[in-house]
Amino acid sequence: MSATDKSPPPNQVFIGTFIHSKALDELEYLHNTAVFVHGSTGRIVAVEKECDHSRRLDETFNSLGWSPAEVKIYDLTTSRVGGEGEGEGGGGEARFFFPGFVDTHIHASQYPNAGIFGKSTLIEWLKTYTFPLEAGLGEDPAKARRVYARCVRRTLSHGTTAAAYYATVDVAATNLLVDICLEKGQRALVGRVCMDEPRTCPPWYRDESARQALARTAECVAHARRRDPAGGLVRPAVTPRFAPSCTPEAMRALGALAAREGLAVQTHVSENKGEIDLVREMFPVESGGGRGYAGVYDAFGLLAERTILAHAVHLSEEEAGLLRERGAKVSHCPCSNSAITSGAARVRWLLDRGIDVGLGTDVSGGYSPSVLEAARQASLVSRHVAMGGDDKAKLSVEEVLYLATRGGAKCLGLEGTVGAFEVGMEWDAQLISLGGVGEDGEGEDEGNVDVFGWESWDEMVAKWLFNGDDRNTRRVWVKGRLVHEKV
Amino acid sequence: MSATDKSPPPNQVFIGTFIHSKALDELEYLHNTAVFVHGSTGRIVAVEKECDHSRRLDETFNSLGWSPAEVKIYDLTTSRVGGEGEGEGGGGEARFFFPGFVDTHIHASQYPNAGIFGKSTLIEWLKTYTFPLEAGLGEDPAKARRVYARCVRRTLSHGTTAAAYYATVDVAATNLLVDICLEKGQRALVGRVCMDEPRTCPPWYRDESARQALARTAECVAHARRRDPAGGLVRPAVTPRFAPSCTPEAMRALGALAAREGLAVQTHVSENKGEIDLVREMFPVESGGGRGYAGVYDAFGLLAERTILAHAVHLSEEEAGLLRERGAKVSHCPCSNSAITSGAARVRWLLDRGIDVGLGTDVSGGYSPSVLEAARQASLVSRHVAMGGDDKAKLSVEEVLYLATRGGAKCLGLEGTVGAFEVGMEWDAQLISLGGVGEDGEGEDEGNVDVFGWESWDEMVAKWLFNGDDRNTRRVWVKGRLVHEKV
Repeated sequence: MSATDKSPPPNQVFIGTFIHSKALDELEYLHNTAVFVHGSTGRIVAVEKECDHSRRLDETFNSLGWSPAEVKIYDLTTSRVGGEGEGEGGGGEARFFFPGFVDTHIHASQYPNAGIFGKSTLIEWLKTYTFPLEAGLGEDPAKARRVYARCVRRTLSHGTTAAAYYATVDVAATNLLVDICLEKGQRALVGRVCMDEPRTCPPWYRDESARQALARTAECVAHARRRDPAGGLVRPAVTPRFAPSCTPEAMRALGALAAREGLAVQTHVSENKGEIDLVREMFPVESGGGRGYAGVYDAFGLLAERTILAHAVHLSEEEAGLLRERGAKVSHCPCSNSAITSGAARVRWLLDRGIDVGLGTDVSGGYSPSVLEAARQASLVSRHVAMGGDDKAKLSVEEVLYLATRGGAKCLGLEGTVGAFEVGMEWDAQLISLGGVGEDGEGEDEGNVDVFGWESWDEMVAKWLFNGDDRNTRRVWVKGRLVHEKV
Repeated sequence: MSATDKSPPPNQVFIGTFIHSKALDELEYLHNTAVFVHGSTGRIVAVEKECDHSRRLDETFNSLGWSPAEVKIYDLTTSRVGGEGEGEGGGGEARFFFPGFVDTHIHASQYPNAGIFGKSTLIEWLKTYTFPLEAGLGEDPAKARRVYARCVRRTLSHGTTAAAYYATVDVAATNLLVDICLEKGQRALVGRVCMDEPRTCPPWYRDESARQALARTAECVAHARRRDPAGGLVRPAVTPRFAPSCTPEAMRALGALAAREGLAVQTHVSENKGEIDLVREMFPVESGGGRGYAGVYDAFGLLAERTILAHAVHLSEEEAGLLRERGAKVSHCPCSNSAITSGAARVRWLLDRGIDVGLGTDVSGGYSPSVLEAARQASLVSRHVAMGGDDKAKLSVEEVLYLATRGGAKCLGLEGTVGAFEVGMEWDAQLISLGGVGEDGEGEDEGNVDVFGWESWDEMVAKWLFNGDDRNTRRVWVKGRLVHEKV
């Protein structure tokens, strides 16, 4: 990994096949294409499609005012990237560039519990597995570093170029997560978790008052802005854990802070039926008159275009209308929703109502830090929704990959900045390599995707979605900088 | 891989932690244990639990009449298996022996389509994706070899030590699959697919008559018995594709053949609602009076203790009673049932009715050849069943791993032969290694399972179930013979 190399990368040109979402239900395949990335900004400054690049490269260098000798060229059409060290696959191997994944909901602090949830559901899961682990990171900075470093390293290796992280209640541990994202070069929203409601939060893991919740949040906002003043890579996010763990005072203050400072907001909504009952009980006025769980956030000024709501499994028609009106985004977390038996979110239903949706791994309610796994499970969960009778609920390969990239970018306020290969966007990308099968059925293992050579590009992408993993993600770049490399 | 080495392995002793199912809901952890495996039979001849093996090994060698110098020792407690070539993980790494997985339902011929299914459901999926691929293998032996070799190699690498395979209609291609299983050392049932019903099977891919269906099946049975007379590794299975693709004459003849020769039977039942309607329409008499889809097989003598029925998603109470009465087994295929929107099988409901259940990958209705993935999805799908209101439907980590091993063994008629580490059973096993996380959050990658060092064994197994893959399966043995090794 070269993320620690802080000098700006040179101007770069990437040549080969590029695949990205053109629309929700359409992947575009750009073959024999060259994408020119400006060094210090990481911005895509030119895209030459279906080009004879031997001739066109020089022309474009010329028009960009680049000196050819100083440009770094990654050409998938003439050589294996990575040189001699890599084995030769069989005849069918395929390589392409794909936009980096966006994880719209992940608790970095819960990473060590990935896969551990027993038969619990939300509230029991929080108390049994989650609060003790999160509290432990505040008490032990070395443990926090170990956990966060591993989490960021892992998500990068899975192709996550941008993530909306929850840290913990602790200020220092939250600030550390900001530092680690910058250190490793991952784009991120980072939020200190606010929770000050004594009726639901354990005494050993909460803010002592709404005032303290606000002050600590402000400290973390200041730290993130000090470390990345332009917010080009890491930005702070106002993060009330969820309505039941916050007092009205805290939520009102956080809503005002977010509005005043133009900050992103992230929280949870309508994940589990018991939780929804609890919200109705704790906030009878704010949730009354059909305003529901979402209405509680709205009452405290927390529902805006910059708000990411995780789950939204059991939203009512009225709540969906409210989200749409406010422009609030939904982070769909299928691995988590299935694992802790929250329900099957109706993504098609949300999309049909004009709500923007991205994918979240929701580690560790979700068992996997991989957005590709979240996309796979989004496909499967949509089929469980369809089994209920609505065949239109099924999400296609194209659709879940849209949610994993452009959809997620929109949730994080990065629309037009990342999520596709277009001039003006920044180079957040992954190089995907799928293994070929030799004539004898042998061939190098580059993960579990086996390309026989007769597949269409559509089919290869489907194979990647369903059997791919981090082994297929050979290189990852954020803002033009190489941040992960599979050796 | 040393499967090609046909000389019997030496006597072996395996020392370390062994984990296996003691009962449906209970994993047993045997630490500091030694398992003694007889060379030529691959049988476990002694298990010394919680032993001081430095002293006890010699005693046991003595009582077994083994010469210590000729015994191969795999000791996980003193050294890394595999020697110098392997990197050191962090502090938390864990290694243990686990029984090999049993895949109770997999179409080897469909392996190249793993992950490719679009938005189709069963009947459309068969016509669009499946029949053309299967037919192609009969026409091209080199292609058949390439596909089968890859499939067997892949399933071995995922820890599948025994599989119930469907080949194709073609005799030569089916026989080839038998040969490849023997060549690579995988335990298998192999069935030629019978399909002779002109109303539902394409003219370019079917048996021409019931008579031909029977004759071709007999050819394949004879081949398998010639190649493995004792059936110690590979046995033939009578395989009517499913009721709608077979004439009554063919099913009756196949049922008689299976009964006469004591052969295993494998087919599909009650996968998809459209299919169930079709069966009712095609077999009004046999399915009438509440006997249903299962009743059709019963009418033709195909429902017995040696019968493996894939899916069983929508069985009625009466059908479940019939299965129980006949002792027929169910192969639960969660990946497939979700992917092609068949439904969510009620595994708890089946188990409560006294029906034996194993797991099937059902490649390529299922997208993955990994039984670990099937176990993971069995857990998640059971939670979707629970969302319908029956909280008891949830399957635990212990339960899905039971289904993946002992449950599957029972389905394949291998109860008491494989599935656990008990004296008298054969050594079908995998060595699992989980990666440790270093103090700095770095550490070698042995797949996606990160062990921090504070986890309980239960938690490590849960982490393996939810984030493990073939990278964690470092070695695989069948009948004492090493058949896969991760380098």
